[in-house]
Amino acid sequence: MKRKPEAQGKAMQQRRKLKIAMIGYGFMGRAHSNAFHQAGHFFDLPFQLNLKVICGRNQTKLEQTAAQWGWEESEADWESVVSRADIDIVDICTPNYLHEPIAVAAAEAGKMVLCEKPLANSVAAAARMAQAARKIPTLVWFNYRRVPAVMFAHQLVQQGKLGEVNHYRAQYLQSWGRSADPTAWRFKPDEAGSGVLGDLLSHSLDLAIWLNGPIHRLCSSIHTFAEGRQVDDAVTLLAEFSNGSIGTFEASRFATGNLNRNCFEINGSTGSLEFNLEEMNHLNFTDLREDASLQGRRKILVTGPGHPYVEHFWPPGHVIGYEHTFTATLVDFLDSVSKGERFHADFADAIEVQRILEAVVASSERRKWIETDRAQSN
Amino acid sequence: MKRKPEAQGKAMQQRRKLKIAMIGYGFMGRAHSNAFHQAGHFFDLPFQLNLKVICGRNQTKLEQTAAQWGWEESEADWESVVSRADIDIVDICTPNYLHEPIAVAAAEAGKMVLCEKPLANSVAAAARMAQAARKIPTLVWFNYRRVPAVMFAHQLVQQGKLGEVNHYRAQYLQSWGRSADPTAWRFKPDEAGSGVLGDLLSHSLDLAIWLNGPIHRLCSSIHTFAEGRQVDDAVTLLAEFSNGSIGTFEASRFATGNLNRNCFEINGSTGSLEFNLEEMNHLNFTDLREDASLQGRRKILVTGPGHPYVEHFWPPGHVIGYEHTFTATLVDFLDSVSKGERFHADFADAIEVQRILEAVVASSERRKWIETDRAQSN
Amino acid sequence: MKRKPEAQGKAMQQRRKLKIAMIGYGFMGRAHSNAFHQAGHFFDLPFQLNLKVICGRNQTKLEQTAAQWGWEESEADWESVVSRADIDIVDICTPNYLHEPIAVAAAEAGKMVLCEKPLANSVAAAARMAQAARKIPTLVWFNYRRVPAVMFAHQLVQQGKLGEVNHYRAQYLQSWGRSADPTAWRFKPDEAGSGVLGDLLSHSLDLAIWLNGPIHRLCSSIHTFAEGRQVDDAVTLLAEFSNGSIGTFEASRFATGNLNRNCFEINGSTGSLEFNLEEMNHLNFTDLREDASLQGRRKILVTGPGHPYVEHFWPPGHVIGYEHTFTATLVDFLDSVSKGERFHADFADAIEVQRILEAVVASSERRKWIETDRAQSN
Amino acid sequence: MKRKPEAQGKAMQQRRKLKIAMIGYGFMGRAHSNAFHQAGHFFDLPFQLNLKVICGRNQTKLEQTAAQWGWEESEADWESVVSRADIDIVDICTPNYLHEPIAVAAAEAGKMVLCEKPLANSVAAAARMAQAARKIPTLVWFNYRRVPAVMFAHQLVQQGKLGEVNHYRAQYLQSWGRSADPTAWRFKPDEAGSGVLGDLLSHSLDLAIWLNGPIHRLCSSIHTFAEGRQVDDAVTLLAEFSNGSIGTFEASRFATGNLNRNCFEINGSTGSLEFNLEEMNHLNFTDLREDASLQGRRKILVTGPGHPYVEHFWPPGHVIGYEHTFTATLVDFLDSVSKGERFHADFADAIEVQRILEAVVASSERRKWIETDRAQSN
Repeated sequence: MKRKPEAQGKAMQQRRKLKIAMIGYGFMGRAHSNAFHQAGHFFDLPFQLNLKVICGRNQTKLEQTAAQWGWEESEADWESVVSRADIDIVDICTPNYLHEPIAVAAAEAGKMVLCEKPLANSVAAAARMAQAARKIPTLVWFNYRRVPAVMFAHQLVQQGKLGEVNHYRAQYLQSWGRSADPTAWRFKPDEAGSGVLGDLLSHSLDLAIWLNGPIHRLCSSIHTFAEGRQVDDAVTLLAEFSNGSIGTFEASRFATGNLNRNCFEINGSTGSLEFNLEEMNHLNFTDLREDASLQGRRKILVTGPGHPYVEHFWPPGHVIGYEHTFTATLVDFLDSVSKGERFHADFADAIEVQRILEAVVASSERRKWIETDRAQSN
Repeated sequence: MKRKPEAQGKAMQQRRKLKIAMIGYGFMGRAHSNAFHQAGHFFDLPFQLNLKVICGRNQTKLEQTAAQWGWEESEADWESVVSRADIDIVDICTPNYLHEPIAVAAAEAGKMVLCEKPLANSVAAAARMAQAARKIPTLVWFNYRRVPAVMFAHQLVQQGKLGEVNHYRAQYLQSWGRSADPTAWRFKPDEAGSGVLGDLLSHSLDLAIWLNGPIHRLCSSIHTFAEGRQVDDAVTLLAEFSNGSIGTFEASRFATGNLNRNCFEINGSTGSLEFNLEEMNHLNFTDLREDASLQGRRKILVTGPGHPYVEHFWPPGHVIGYEHTFTATLVDFLDSVSKGERFHADFADAIEVQRILEAVVASSERRKWIETDRAQSN
Repeated sequence: MKRKPEAQGKAMQQRRKLKIAMIGYGFMGRAHSNAFHQAGHFFDLPFQLNLKVICGRNQTKLEQTAAQWGWEESEADWESVVSRADIDIVDICTPNYLHEPIAVAAAEAGKMVLCEKPLANSVAAAARMAQAARKIPTLVWFNYRRVPAVMFAHQLVQQGKLGEVNHYRAQYLQSWGRSADPTAWRFKPDEAGSGVLGDLLSHSLDLAIWLNGPIHRLCSSIHTFAEGRQVDDAVTLLAEFSNGSIGTFEASRFATGNLNRNCFEINGSTGSLEFNLEEMNHLNFTDLREDASLQGRRKILVTGPGHPYVEHFWPPGHVIGYEHTFTATLVDFLDSVSKGERFHADFADAIEVQRILEAVVASSERRKWIETDRAQSN
Repeated sequence: MKRKPEAQGKAMQQRRKLKIAMIGYGFMGRAHSNAFHQAGHFFDLPFQLNLKVICGRNQTKLEQTAAQWGWEESEADWESVVSRADIDIVDICTPNYLHEPIAVAAAEAGKMVLCEKPLANSVAAAARMAQAARKIPTLVWFNYRRVPAVMFAHQLVQQGKLGEVNHYRAQYLQSWGRSADPTAWRFKPDEAGSGVLGDLLSHSLDLAIWLNGPIHRLCSSIHTFAEGRQVDDAVTLLAEFSNGSIGTFEASRFATGNLNRNCFEINGSTGSLEFNLEEMNHLNFTDLREDASLQGRRKILVTGPGHPYVEHFWPPGHVIGYEHTFTATLVDFLDSVSKGERFHADFADAIEVQRILEAVVASSERRKWIETDRAQSN
């Protein structure tokens, strides 16, 4: 007896179908396409997802991506796409300077909007985006919150396992700056807005604020090592958090020996945490409430049991990869939408990161400490 | 202007479509389904893949898996499926004892056959399977060959970077044996054939033979720790390779503190390698041709450039997960099929692993060393 | 006001002075000389130690060592030394074949005897030594018991932190075998007795028996890789312990990439331990009684507080080196002597290691499993 | 035939004897006493060392230390000691505020002066000390330069293995600040001068300047977490080096999970280095001139062959401990003295560290960047 699976899955059939338009088709376009496919494979979603239309300017590459990732249509003109009646979600993974116009247009057309980080190239632009989208669900792809080990770190922080925090230190270290293709949009200030600030530091700041609370003062130093380059190659940063802890941040594309070292360490009175994206399936935890002779960094393999997301993927001991963080982000977003709850990080959350980035620029230019509350009011 | 991507991709359109029937829907069923979806997303395949029919006995679970992973049809009876005219590939991920009848039937029906490891529960069964399939492409899911770090290790061995090998040591250590559900098929000797021997040691042996050549003598000891359990919980093994190196192997479900430590180390006269599946994106390499003062274990993050597979996934520094090894295995298989070349590991390769497993059993039972060449002729 | 420290330390003055004769002046002679000096610097000893006489055949080297390490006298003839009335302790660090005659002579002269490992080149010799020394305090320099991390591991085992043990695995891996000076005494079977068996495996066996109890059955394989070499270069070993756990052992001078990897791992039902001499200040401990989501290898820096020996050396966080293990061994011995208690490992303990070594040789020669109890009675 | 070793070692006998007076008897007093003993055991020294007199205020502790470490005399009054005609070397390991008066008096009496770090509690004091000692050999105990792995790092830097340096980052992280005894001199500003600045940051700065050259600008932030504490608990620091690289520094006694993590990382165009005192026998080196696919952090076990100092200690693979860094420092000093060469780090070198420490204080107080050249002239 032959059975059509669809015939039985009535509950599934009755799930609302969300039609997605994705603007952009590069590295992030692939990562997002993957998430749109994989979310439903690993999780019971409250919606059906339809990869409706992919949009971009290079027709050859666009169609190649469309064919490879199963987008139903491809389209050159984003403006006609974002207001199409049949589109529910607009996902933006263009160069940074296009985030604002696309997001505003999509939001004004009532679409849910997902946007790559950094949300914008200025606080003002981010604020306009958030304002335009204030009544619709939004998502900013700060995907590293959903690394299972990072989400687990967040849970430990929330449970009070760290006690009073004294130190937060974060580094996002890459190596490719010296030999990079200088014509890439990431090196054009008009398109990228910045170098490592938007690309790398934004991730570190989002995690820091989420894990350790607001930053109220900072002093920074921005550097460009490559001759003639017009965006920053590296940034170093001292910070003070509202909870009384102090922070150091560093982001670089010239930190040779490190390929993708997005790491943080938090030292608290009763516990300490360490994470490094290059070993993203592990979280190091030191429990200071143990007998002193037994204290040590526990290298926890965060693949379950009891860890976020991973039991939807594979059994304990089977590691996941970079792309799963996008899938988990999307799944949480859809869950929030279905429940009518606010998702984090959304556009409003991302303004805070933009504010700090702007303060970082101001501090480095003026060579002085900046009160970020004051920066906000600027 | 709206464009249908399919319209342009004529070359893609003209690719032959391979219709797949998958028998089984458990952990491996999910891993294989994922590979069938993901292969075409990340690689330019010579074929189109069609997830045609999934087959299994528990109707509820089967339909759930079918719906979740996009199988067109579901079916209870494997015998009617494997000979269907519209099926090109039969993929077997059932309990071990069913591998033989399904594979033989599918092969006799002229289908390409993919089969989970261990290929069979005896050398004789494996030989019958290989004989039935001697004229068709086959694949055994020894997926760990296609961990990029492991394939890269193989390349270094092939390039002679290790020199004359003296030692090979491998461990496949898991922890879950003590608290496992005793009713699972993996603990039923009639279904599983064995415990860690087929489940874990088979992987270690396949890698060892592939990386270091034939094993010609061994002495083993098989243990069951859990009271009343009818399959083995652990095995330890001394071995001699034809290249003059000596080996030790250990596989266990009682090696607490280790979740999925599938590791090997090879010590040669000019180089040494170490791999551990729990940190599967890294390969440790010691180059003994360096100045002695500069020698040390290099922890290579095997995410490109210059590493197998990974540049099809994500840029350097972005790690992959467990499931990608199935995708890469499938991609290599399809490539071999399109070129009319033999794929490895195929059924014939897997006989060698079965022969060693059988020698392991014989050695442990008789408490003596076994010449595996003689074992073969038994 | 000038004060002579000696004047006040009356208690110290009244400590009995032990006069030491050391036979041998090589690598171990230096390590022992160091211990004789350092013990009193870091610990309050129950005795005063007097480096009275050093004994050896190469006059130039002997005098150099004597001068460098402050031995009062040097002497060519050990026979005249070991019976000198003014000598309390005879310490033997000669090539292995001389252990027996020196130890027996010293013991018969009523001296306390300290002896390098392996105690002897046969069980019979070891038994004769133990018999001769049955009424006097003896010490065998199994110094790795007194690595603080190893002693701490022993404490955790004694406290039952591991529960029921299933696996013990040990490796002692070095690299220098390929390029070694072939004229060294370590390669002369008449002098060394064996290669890695006495030199490396003896250490692993002593730790295993001490940490995990008696070995009652084993199967081994001994190999010589270097052409023309007359002692073994490597040994691999399967073992069964009386507590029901199973073991694997490996020792090699051809394990390239490893300089001094004396490591062991113990997997038990409630805890797991790992140690590696190359990182000798750390002990890895996994506590399986933790919530599963928080379990992980704890990398404990064993430098206090609450760890054995180290608080006599430096404050927590300040690591110690190889030589401190000799110092701690000596301190424990002197403490035992002062209390009239038996010290471990003494000659009687070392017989057990010799028994296992002899069973290893027999097993490898006969290519069969050996009941070590039977081996004992041979 | 009995031989007195001293009789033969004429060359040794004719070595000049240097009589040492040590002021202080605490943790550092033990570390220095050990170095005075051990230097001659492991190295052929150009001088004989005589532990003549130890000086301190607590008579009981003083005599205990004197007896334990073999000082010939003990003395309460440092002023009478430093000018004694029979003293050649004055070694200062008192609380910081006493460094200046003792060093100046000793230097004016023509003694060689060895002094613990930080050299002084101000640049002015350090300058006065250097001026007083301008004609005599001096040593500051920046012992971490002589960790073999750190000295080897310095050699690699000197050989140009790193190319153009972009980043230098250093952390000196300890945990004990929260639970420390508040009455210790280290918490009294009049005696210690500072908290982590002099205690920990001074070490990091000395290494940074030695390895990477002068710091010409910095911005810092000093924090005290413990209520009522009058010295600093933590400091964070941004820096610019004269070679164009940028730096971050952090020192803390509240960095829980870290016991003695004195670490640095240097990223250059052709190589990258990492060191961590908690694993002081290892140096991580990434060689960027390798083929990209083979690049990785090499974990070099710096125990020889070809590494500084260690072959004087033990054979390759046998690790050393914390105290050996003092021994190696002393040996290099004595070698310089015998050759009439300037030793580093001497008092003049230490002024540079004091200058930076003073700039750190100024920057934190004024909340602004400081040009350290200008700071110098202040």
